[in-house]
Amino acid sequence: MKTRTEFDSIGHLEVPKDAYYGVQTLRAMENFQISGRKLHPKFIESLVTIKKAAAMTNCKAGHLDSQRASAIIMACDEIISGKWRDQFIVDAIQGGAGTSANMNANEVIANRAIELLGGERGDYSVVHPNDHVNMAQSTNDVIPSAGKLTVIRLFPVLLLQLGKLHQALMDKAKEFDHVLKMGRTQLQDAVPMRLGQSFHAYASVIDRDVRRLEKSREEMYVLNMGGTAIGTAINVSPEYLHHIVKNLAELTGYPFRQAADLIDATQNLDGFVGVSSALKTCAVNLSKICNDLRLLSSGPRTGVHEINLPPRQNGSSIMPGKVNPVIPEVVTQVAYLVIGNDTAITMAAEAGQMELNAFEPVLFYKLFESLDTMAGAVKTLTENCIMGITANEDECRSYVEHSMGICTALCPYIGYKKAAEIAKMSLKTGVPVRDIVLRENLLSAVELKKILDPMIMTEGTEENEAERHTVA
Amino acid sequence: MKTRTEFDSIGHLEVPKDAYYGVQTLRAMENFQISGRKLHPKFIESLVTIKKAAAMTNCKAGHLDSQRASAIIMACDEIISGKWRDQFIVDAIQGGAGTSANMNANEVIANRAIELLGGERGDYSVVHPNDHVNMAQSTNDVIPSAGKLTVIRLFPVLLLQLGKLHQALMDKAKEFDHVLKMGRTQLQDAVPMRLGQSFHAYASVIDRDVRRLEKSREEMYVLNMGGTAIGTAINVSPEYLHHIVKNLAELTGYPFRQAADLIDATQNLDGFVGVSSALKTCAVNLSKICNDLRLLSSGPRTGVHEINLPPRQNGSSIMPGKVNPVIPEVVTQVAYLVIGNDTAITMAAEAGQMELNAFEPVLFYKLFESLDTMAGAVKTLTENCIMGITANEDECRSYVEHSMGICTALCPYIGYKKAAEIAKMSLKTGVPVRDIVLRENLLSAVELKKILDPMIMTEGTEENEAERHTVA
Amino acid sequence: MKTRTEFDSIGHLEVPKDAYYGVQTLRAMENFQISGRKLHPKFIESLVTIKKAAAMTNCKAGHLDSQRASAIIMACDEIISGKWRDQFIVDAIQGGAGTSANMNANEVIANRAIELLGGERGDYSVVHPNDHVNMAQSTNDVIPSAGKLTVIRLFPVLLLQLGKLHQALMDKAKEFDHVLKMGRTQLQDAVPMRLGQSFHAYASVIDRDVRRLEKSREEMYVLNMGGTAIGTAINVSPEYLHHIVKNLAELTGYPFRQAADLIDATQNLDGFVGVSSALKTCAVNLSKICNDLRLLSSGPRTGVHEINLPPRQNGSSIMPGKVNPVIPEVVTQVAYLVIGNDTAITMAAEAGQMELNAFEPVLFYKLFESLDTMAGAVKTLTENCIMGITANEDECRSYVEHSMGICTALCPYIGYKKAAEIAKMSLKTGVPVRDIVLRENLLSAVELKKILDPMIMTEGTEENEAERHTVA
Amino acid sequence: MKTRTEFDSIGHLEVPKDAYYGVQTLRAMENFQISGRKLHPKFIESLVTIKKAAAMTNCKAGHLDSQRASAIIMACDEIISGKWRDQFIVDAIQGGAGTSANMNANEVIANRAIELLGGERGDYSVVHPNDHVNMAQSTNDVIPSAGKLTVIRLFPVLLLQLGKLHQALMDKAKEFDHVLKMGRTQLQDAVPMRLGQSFHAYASVIDRDVRRLEKSREEMYVLNMGGTAIGTAINVSPEYLHHIVKNLAELTGYPFRQAADLIDATQNLDGFVGVSSALKTCAVNLSKICNDLRLLSSGPRTGVHEINLPPRQNGSSIMPGKVNPVIPEVVTQVAYLVIGNDTAITMAAEAGQMELNAFEPVLFYKLFESLDTMAGAVKTLTENCIMGITANEDECRSYVEHSMGICTALCPYIGYKKAAEIAKMSLKTGVPVRDIVLRENLLSAVELKKILDPMIMTEGTEENEAERHTVA
Repeated sequence: MKTRTEFDSIGHLEVPKDAYYGVQTLRAMENFQISGRKLHPKFIESLVTIKKAAAMTNCKAGHLDSQRASAIIMACDEIISGKWRDQFIVDAIQGGAGTSANMNANEVIANRAIELLGGERGDYSVVHPNDHVNMAQSTNDVIPSAGKLTVIRLFPVLLLQLGKLHQALMDKAKEFDHVLKMGRTQLQDAVPMRLGQSFHAYASVIDRDVRRLEKSREEMYVLNMGGTAIGTAINVSPEYLHHIVKNLAELTGYPFRQAADLIDATQNLDGFVGVSSALKTCAVNLSKICNDLRLLSSGPRTGVHEINLPPRQNGSSIMPGKVNPVIPEVVTQVAYLVIGNDTAITMAAEAGQMELNAFEPVLFYKLFESLDTMAGAVKTLTENCIMGITANEDECRSYVEHSMGICTALCPYIGYKKAAEIAKMSLKTGVPVRDIVLRENLLSAVELKKILDPMIMTEGTEENEAERHTVA
Repeated sequence: MKTRTEFDSIGHLEVPKDAYYGVQTLRAMENFQISGRKLHPKFIESLVTIKKAAAMTNCKAGHLDSQRASAIIMACDEIISGKWRDQFIVDAIQGGAGTSANMNANEVIANRAIELLGGERGDYSVVHPNDHVNMAQSTNDVIPSAGKLTVIRLFPVLLLQLGKLHQALMDKAKEFDHVLKMGRTQLQDAVPMRLGQSFHAYASVIDRDVRRLEKSREEMYVLNMGGTAIGTAINVSPEYLHHIVKNLAELTGYPFRQAADLIDATQNLDGFVGVSSALKTCAVNLSKICNDLRLLSSGPRTGVHEINLPPRQNGSSIMPGKVNPVIPEVVTQVAYLVIGNDTAITMAAEAGQMELNAFEPVLFYKLFESLDTMAGAVKTLTENCIMGITANEDECRSYVEHSMGICTALCPYIGYKKAAEIAKMSLKTGVPVRDIVLRENLLSAVELKKILDPMIMTEGTEENEAERHTVA
Repeated sequence: MKTRTEFDSIGHLEVPKDAYYGVQTLRAMENFQISGRKLHPKFIESLVTIKKAAAMTNCKAGHLDSQRASAIIMACDEIISGKWRDQFIVDAIQGGAGTSANMNANEVIANRAIELLGGERGDYSVVHPNDHVNMAQSTNDVIPSAGKLTVIRLFPVLLLQLGKLHQALMDKAKEFDHVLKMGRTQLQDAVPMRLGQSFHAYASVIDRDVRRLEKSREEMYVLNMGGTAIGTAINVSPEYLHHIVKNLAELTGYPFRQAADLIDATQNLDGFVGVSSALKTCAVNLSKICNDLRLLSSGPRTGVHEINLPPRQNGSSIMPGKVNPVIPEVVTQVAYLVIGNDTAITMAAEAGQMELNAFEPVLFYKLFESLDTMAGAVKTLTENCIMGITANEDECRSYVEHSMGICTALCPYIGYKKAAEIAKMSLKTGVPVRDIVLRENLLSAVELKKILDPMIMTEGTEENEAERHTVA
Repeated sequence: MKTRTEFDSIGHLEVPKDAYYGVQTLRAMENFQISGRKLHPKFIESLVTIKKAAAMTNCKAGHLDSQRASAIIMACDEIISGKWRDQFIVDAIQGGAGTSANMNANEVIANRAIELLGGERGDYSVVHPNDHVNMAQSTNDVIPSAGKLTVIRLFPVLLLQLGKLHQALMDKAKEFDHVLKMGRTQLQDAVPMRLGQSFHAYASVIDRDVRRLEKSREEMYVLNMGGTAIGTAINVSPEYLHHIVKNLAELTGYPFRQAADLIDATQNLDGFVGVSSALKTCAVNLSKICNDLRLLSSGPRTGVHEINLPPRQNGSSIMPGKVNPVIPEVVTQVAYLVIGNDTAITMAAEAGQMELNAFEPVLFYKLFESLDTMAGAVKTLTENCIMGITANEDECRSYVEHSMGICTALCPYIGYKKAAEIAKMSLKTGVPVRDIVLRENLLSAVELKKILDPMIMTEGTEENEAERHTVA
């Protein structure tokens, strides 16, 4: 392999002659063989978008000549469009608060710009990774900003999927609105409800998650670009400082604004913890829903079996005919992954010291993993599970008819104590609740007809009813 | 001990004759000897406030006669004012989604109301714990609502302390605004800044925490009161359902509203996870600040020693004269407690099944612990630490004068590579950076005077400067 | 209140005249109002036992005169026996690596010893908290050692309860060995088993937990006593250093040994993380068992209802006759508490710096909470749940008879594909599997009798069978 | 693309004609697009090794004809040697307890075996994935066993690296044994020690981690192979049940043994939690060491600067000459990852229900990630950091000479109170401790010479000294 020699403050290294990356990227390769995974594609895109905005801003400010600026911008555009991605070789988990990621980008852009200007890769007098590409920037403002831009770009994927999930759940709420079933608390028979209400509740909680996630995203729009090393904006011209965030906002279409306190914004990662917390809370709700789906579809003969999940694959390598709730299972697994990642993200954020938090790379790695896997999980949940769920109406109704739970409705008329006695007796003797009440002359048949009508029990009041018909 | 016999569906038990609690409370005592801690006083208050609102609402709705209602309300008022608290004996951690807590309240209120009506404790024909005190309620709407009311009542204590902390930090930001010091990234010398900027950054992040906490509190105002067992509002009259939340809002002065989807609101605890997440994020920031304070005050001879924390106690039982950063240390410990509690709360919320989450008691126990301990930690941090911090101005300035970090300011003039060489040479030879630059004829003395002025380096631009004077 | 004036390096404070504690304890009270909980009683006992051992060792080494030594030892014995406990007033969570706890003990012991020698409380010329009571000790060896001794003393309580749980589960394994039921995987019908096998599996995993916990305890026997401030044994005589651990071992009856590397042993808390991890793993298993118990007892009409948990209390304040699985629920809640505590403990252990970990107090607080609550939870699980479980044999058997799961046994004879077809057909048509096989002439009635005997399916081989009879 | 049609119980799918995988693998691809990562290579190897052992055992037992067995074994050997790995296409995170992974292996092996026997891929009459390759197996015994085998195979990589780290730390302990320095507790000056002692302590804790990890591995040797679906060994011949684990042990060289309670072993994943816990504890210790290294190397001018880490790369894109502790930083990041994974693993293990835990895939994914990344982190720590650390002996000694910490050594001679006064006075006036003591006639010059010799303070007793020379 042909090489060129490049120098850094440690010494020098042989870089493959054709490489767009340079010596500092190679150092990172030596130092960090950790996750075996490269930088997230959206993170590369975000990082390079920031480089482009910086070049534009520096050029307008008169600090970067337009020839170099044009070449840098063109190189950035190529990378954004998908080119030279194989030149981003550093491990996603790295020491140094992302310096290696930043320098990998600086070097690739510089060498490609050099080439575009007719120079030879490695001849940094043409375009220098630090002096020109990284002009007026520091890893410490570029990397957290790139992290935020990445989160913002991954969010719509997840929100779209959550929106579709919400719709699918609402559709089922409507479809199953007439299906009478028993509600259960603590896995014990409680009181009647409608299956549609269950799905409506799932839709409601997902809707709340969407709003919680959106709120958490607000903090991602506040950038420390311009603060450079520690937030004091050293080596930054007023022109650049005033315009870099504005330019980035224009370039991307996102409502970015510059942090009021750049020093705070450089050293604290709590905004990312906020996002991870919202993801974690969403994971809690997704897992709860999926656990319910597995309970409701348990059986077919030895479980609750109120609903059927669409069969997606053979359930067992040994048990023929078995169909398992594989989709809810994978969603719950992703929920645990997201919750575990939140622990890692929390610890990384807590470990910041003085003017910087050096543990951003693992925080980003885990946060992007949470976003990606959750989007994938929600997608398969909607498409391969929720949309195909069917109800076993007869079994649902049968549970209502055989349960003692309806005794609850007697309390306002005969008191808790008497109702409890009847429940107990019915459970023991098998005599229906209605018959016992009649036999004991506690209520008349007419009264009982209304009191023990399970459909009425599910409605509570005319308001609930009204809402029901809205759903319907 | 004299006793009275009480019955429940399990059988009967001997209850101390003088006890206001009854058989169901005693059952809970037998079943749950777990934490050794009783219900949180604010939780008792909240629970009883809800009972009072329910009695008022039921009375107005014509379901509870005014005599019984009055007695119940008077009993509630007594408990709220601090009486009969020793009658709340159930363990804070209990099975049954809080049924024992609810019944403990129902029994104490009933027996006290009986007494007020001239009856004898245990004669539930006068006032019945379930039929009268618990009328139109279920553990499943009362307990989560009491949990929310408790959170709302504990919040101001914490927010007050965070507000004071913010003010104390802003005061220090102003006091130390002129103190030049070195910034550090990754614990290595970076570039100059002012000590006031450090404290301003701490104030900024605390301000963000306050706003994040306030946002998380919004979810606490949505109650499932009226939903009873599973959210279908079984056994609830329309009058009650319409007014219970409104009445509770009036009684407490908080902007409560009824959940649009009562079934969702009964089974999901994600709102509490949201609060715990905001607390956790605040814990991350508090711990980061406190870790910084310990680093900055390290020494006196073998550490950074830029600031002095007020001495609060002898630091060591063996090392005379030692004064330790005990206040920041205790804050960080509380941060870990809060973060650990968030894990427990997350798991408890995830474990809900079908129409109820039975794991509320441990969730509340941990959430209240987080709120209480964090308030205590922030209070001692402000009063016993932040307010008494002094700066070692000479040491701070001396670091600036001896550090290579100022080389960064040379980059725009002589390039990154040359600046790096000079930094290395200066570090090796001890010759000041300025002298090397002059000796090599890279810049003139006049230019250097401005470029290497560390105070200018801390300001970035006139804007920063402007903000600085705002602070000042 | 009468007071005496005491001095420390901060200044002086008025101490209640009757108090055995002194100025340093009061300082701690001012600084730390955090958890509202005092030191764990077993921790006080452990701390004072170490003080006693130190006095004995110092006396034998000729550094502490026998008069003072005797008084100190007598004071320690009084505290160990339960006296003066109200004098231990510092908060369990405190800054300073436990210096306040240590000084609280030193002061109480000193003042009581002074009194025993006829002196006046506060006259530390008679017995000095630091020079005499704390002689040859540091907070940094005393506190972690007291923490280990406390863990060791709390362990038997938990292990006893786990032992009883194991026995109760084995008893049920035997009692239910003949009860045929369906096994479930992924909550779907799988293949037949016996209910006794389920309980045997629970017993097996608890047995493994006991052994894992015992292994984790091994690390508790290694003490850094004698290492004083940082493990270099400064201010310690060879005589003391040689004998202190030996004497403590004799005094307590535990096989303590001195750490080979006292510096390591002073700064690292990983042994406690090991204990917490074993507790966490046990919590995982307990919660899994309890979740199963709730599933198996779900119903009575709308769930699995294979077993009955003993009713322990009314299940609901609104639903009469409802009996909930409150005991398993509380155990799972404790499991979440223990798992959350493990997060806090992990973070506290990770935060150690240089020669000390200052975050021991919160680590101990959480670790003792885990041990105490888990012991309480296991006790109620055994006594109030497991021992009273009964089987619904008919329902168990009925599930076997109606499930397709037995088709699995056909695979070796007719192949997976054909067996799957039959399962599907039977599920669809309701025709029993046996009949379809016969109708299709796939196997003879004689063959089927043996192949489809569910009891044989539960046994696998003669070995299993042999084990079964061992259990029986 | 040419395809073949394959059928399953859901229906049929078009499989690429050349694919070795089949319809069930394709179903999994449709269902699970989650992590974007395939099965771990070592897991594929482990899974296929088990398939080979099963074929051998079934053949010997007379249930699998030798022609098919040979073809299956040959196909397995090819895969083990690295062939056909691109045919393992299912996502690492999947629903169904690993059924998709198991079926992917069964299908690839079957089709390759068919080919070896001259058949055409997809013609499962020649070799059937379920009936022949999966004979006497279930996902539920194969997958956990493959997980254990994978852990066992990844362990030596990590243990090797930890062993090298231990050696490197011991080398530094020896190299730095003479370097006098100040110990610090709570980041405050404490008492003197030797730099070698610091590194010896690091070596000691790593040694303990190695032993803890090895202990946790013991549980990996207990397999549930032969238990099939739920541990009852349905569809398994006695011959197979007796020999499968033995054969696997022979094939792999690991001391596997069959679980005594196969039902327990099938449903519980606590052994993996044990391994993860040991990894987590190791992560705690690694992070603590790395945090120390960053503190000790902080500076060069504004920090402690007692040691130098080998410069590994430019530290900053903006600050020339800056060299950052990138290696310790990446190790701490991996520690957070491992700790976060432990949370996910804990939750996955807790979520098991009845006879199976369906959440194994995410548990394995996270556990293997922990093992891999930690091995990588430890490797770079040893090679790129520890081995190149140098000491700044003069600065270390200078701290000792200027610190008050030596006052501690005066306590046994002049008392804690007097020593505290002198420390305070010296700190205030700058007069050396020695001079104050002499001036006040508290001790003679001769006495002081010995008492205040810092090297003696680091040794404690002749025993420590002896150990010191052992190290040396």
